Amino acid sequence: MPDAYQSLILPDVQQMLMEGDRHGLSAFCNVVHSVVVAEILEELNDAQVWAVLDHAELPRRVEIFENLSLRRQVELVESLDSGRLSELLEEMSADDRVDLLSRLSQQRREDVLRLIARAERNDIRRLLSYDEGSAGAIMTTEYASLPANIMVRDAIERLRQQAPNSETIYYVYILNENRRLEGMISLRELILARPEARLSDLMQRDVMRLRVTDSQGAVAAELARYNFLAVPIVDADDRLVGIVTHDDALDVVQEQATEDAYRQSGVQPLDDSYEDTPLTTVLWKRGIWLVFLSIMALMNARVLEHYTASHRTLEALILVFLPLVMASGGNAGSQSATLFIRMMALRSGDSPSDSLFGQHRLILVRELAVALSLGMILALLDCLVAHFWFGRSLAEAAVIGATIVSVVCLGTSIGAVLPLILKRLGMDPAIMSNPLIASILDVLAVTMFFQIAILML
Amino acid sequence: MPDAYQSLILPDVQQMLMEGDRHGLSAFCNVVHSVVVAEILEELNDAQVWAVLDHAELPRRVEIFENLSLRRQVELVESLDSGRLSELLEEMSADDRVDLLSRLSQQRREDVLRLIARAERNDIRRLLSYDEGSAGAIMTTEYASLPANIMVRDAIERLRQQAPNSETIYYVYILNENRRLEGMISLRELILARPEARLSDLMQRDVMRLRVTDSQGAVAAELARYNFLAVPIVDADDRLVGIVTHDDALDVVQEQATEDAYRQSGVQPLDDSYEDTPLTTVLWKRGIWLVFLSIMALMNARVLEHYTASHRTLEALILVFLPLVMASGGNAGSQSATLFIRMMALRSGDSPSDSLFGQHRLILVRELAVALSLGMILALLDCLVAHFWFGRSLAEAAVIGATIVSVVCLGTSIGAVLPLILKRLGMDPAIMSNPLIASILDVLAVTMFFQIAILML
Repeated sequence: MPDAYQSLILPDVQQMLMEGDRHGLSAFCNVVHSVVVAEILEELNDAQVWAVLDHAELPRRVEIFENLSLRRQVELVESLDSGRLSELLEEMSADDRVDLLSRLSQQRREDVLRLIARAERNDIRRLLSYDEGSAGAIMTTEYASLPANIMVRDAIERLRQQAPNSETIYYVYILNENRRLEGMISLRELILARPEARLSDLMQRDVMRLRVTDSQGAVAAELARYNFLAVPIVDADDRLVGIVTHDDALDVVQEQATEDAYRQSGVQPLDDSYEDTPLTTVLWKRGIWLVFLSIMALMNARVLEHYTASHRTLEALILVFLPLVMASGGNAGSQSATLFIRMMALRSGDSPSDSLFGQHRLILVRELAVALSLGMILALLDCLVAHFWFGRSLAEAAVIGATIVSVVCLGTSIGAVLPLILKRLGMDPAIMSNPLIASILDVLAVTMFFQIAILML
Repeated sequence: MPDAYQSLILPDVQQMLMEGDRHGLSAFCNVVHSVVVAEILEELNDAQVWAVLDHAELPRRVEIFENLSLRRQVELVESLDSGRLSELLEEMSADDRVDLLSRLSQQRREDVLRLIARAERNDIRRLLSYDEGSAGAIMTTEYASLPANIMVRDAIERLRQQAPNSETIYYVYILNENRRLEGMISLRELILARPEARLSDLMQRDVMRLRVTDSQGAVAAELARYNFLAVPIVDADDRLVGIVTHDDALDVVQEQATEDAYRQSGVQPLDDSYEDTPLTTVLWKRGIWLVFLSIMALMNARVLEHYTASHRTLEALILVFLPLVMASGGNAGSQSATLFIRMMALRSGDSPSDSLFGQHRLILVRELAVALSLGMILALLDCLVAHFWFGRSLAEAAVIGATIVSVVCLGTSIGAVLPLILKRLGMDPAIMSNPLIASILDVLAVTMFFQIAILML
């Protein structure tokens, strides 16, 4: 992400490294925002990065390190001995640490874990065990918690002690002696309350919570719905095990938008950013879809061959207008599919339920009305052009018009219904990508075009 | 968004309304979370909503009202007299209030504004004047601010007084006597500091800030980059005029993801959710693209007609394999376009700069390598199928293979380069939608297929 600011500092840092300017490097590490320092370090090689980071104290070094991309973090720790790595990991925040460890080899991970204090080690092992994509995999265990029976005055004092080890102290969770979640209070409410009030009288009791096994999408949806800073994550026994904070939710939403955009264009989602993904992975994730879609198109060629063999006279008409017919159906289908998939994505709190078609019946009826209107507008346009500009007979123009209305209606219906069916089957509707819908419609468009032409001419 | 919880409560609320159960309705308004209350009110008619809200005190009523969808808010205030509306508006938070006012008719707005206190009125008029899509249009003016020369003890006391009128007190902005932004301090830091320390010694001085005229996308990108709870928004003289909070950034990211998904499928972005958009608007926003893409396809028909008129012998070959050739180019192009558009969206902090092509040169070279590899894999597959399954001659199979390699390479290049060019021209690369790229490629695919066939056969 080189922006103007950064491209100004990078050469300075390189020069300081060459000249061994300890003063300058120490100022760079400690004065510039850790996010910006990390962005500049992304441009340096491994040895240079460690040479710069040596000028920061451990807590600051870790703060900068956590802001590096995960891919870069993995590269950097490869050259580090296990002693220094465990020191780094012990200082890292729980969620970032687990992300990094999950990318290391099994062997390396075990070597390093052996050097970490037992309490932390158990914490790490538990976090590592949650499924990728679950709330457990992005939560942090560093939340602020208090018992219910203390006074506000004492609560603020205790929070002061917890602050260095908490991701946020703005939301404080109230736990009973079994660590069950009893309530919540915000630091704002604590600041406003009388010092001698009891937390049990102030706290909200009906706290919205999610389970460790819930999807990250559901967590982000709930955070967005309630405008929360963080949501508590509980285990099967309603014990608080972690929190997911607003910044992680924003990352989840960004990642899901990217994945959905890729899927919509027939690219398997990538784990890293596009620039950071190895060439072979890119080839595989794109090639798999292109090959599959090619096979669909070859089926279509087979259908075309079948018709042309028996209807030589229609060849010239079909050939000229086939791309128009296919594009009309495919485009109408992509539009509906995207509108429906996006509508469902924004409601990701919903579970697939039996009432799904019922719930969407009104919208489906409306969608059909849209399809019919759009189909007729396009058909009229195409008829007129075919007759007056291409000089085709009225009968031929009518064939084109009738085909366009049919494929647009069919495309819209299929585009709307297929994602709903996938959702009902408990699958991600986003796999019904635009190219896939287009390839299904292409076959239908060819068949319809020939059948209508055979019928009408 | 009816979920299980909600469908359980809705019938209860309707019954309480019928029976005039004041106790029950008051409990519903005051005990259930305001977000959930609002979601249930969405299902009731205007008279019912006001009948329920009459059982809540004004601050609570406004809190629930703010959680209703904007479309529903506008409908509800239509039946309200200006007196009650101004009372509601005075209590609303600055950003939600402006959203609502901007949807009212000019006349109604002026009527209501006249009833609101002058200081608030000026605030509203200023916020109303910012461009839709700018930071100014989503910021709130209700931030917490302090002077630099006071002690932590006094700071916390002053924050207590500001809290009821601040969107957040977790970030406190330090202003000089001209309201210029001098620094920032978090409530966490204040809680941890010695009570007699001075803010000027504790505050961060180099605070990241954005301008009222910056785009909302840039605001969301900066919030995500630094994991901030809020970013300060300043005017041209570096005076603090508002803040944008994390929840608004999350909304912006969701909205932009939806807009991009729509654009990618050739739908003009909608202002409301799909369900809430009037039929005629949907027709227009979809129809405009379908008609435009049809015109492109008709151009393509013209090209096809030109070739078939002079090369009757090729007709049968071209017709059968044309959908395959067009799909291969279009799909490869959509993939590249999406990967590049998404890459640029995630870096939305960047400005269009002269070094754009330079910056992307490496990725473009890599993209070409991907295109060549994918093209050859598909060509091989299609050649073999054409020869062995379709029984085409080796020469014909070779024509198909050569065409596939060419269109995949061309598709990938165009898909990658067109968004970059648009970005460089200062336009939104997302307007280069998949159907648009496909329609450009269709014409090129037809031309290439005929030219290669003419050359080789």
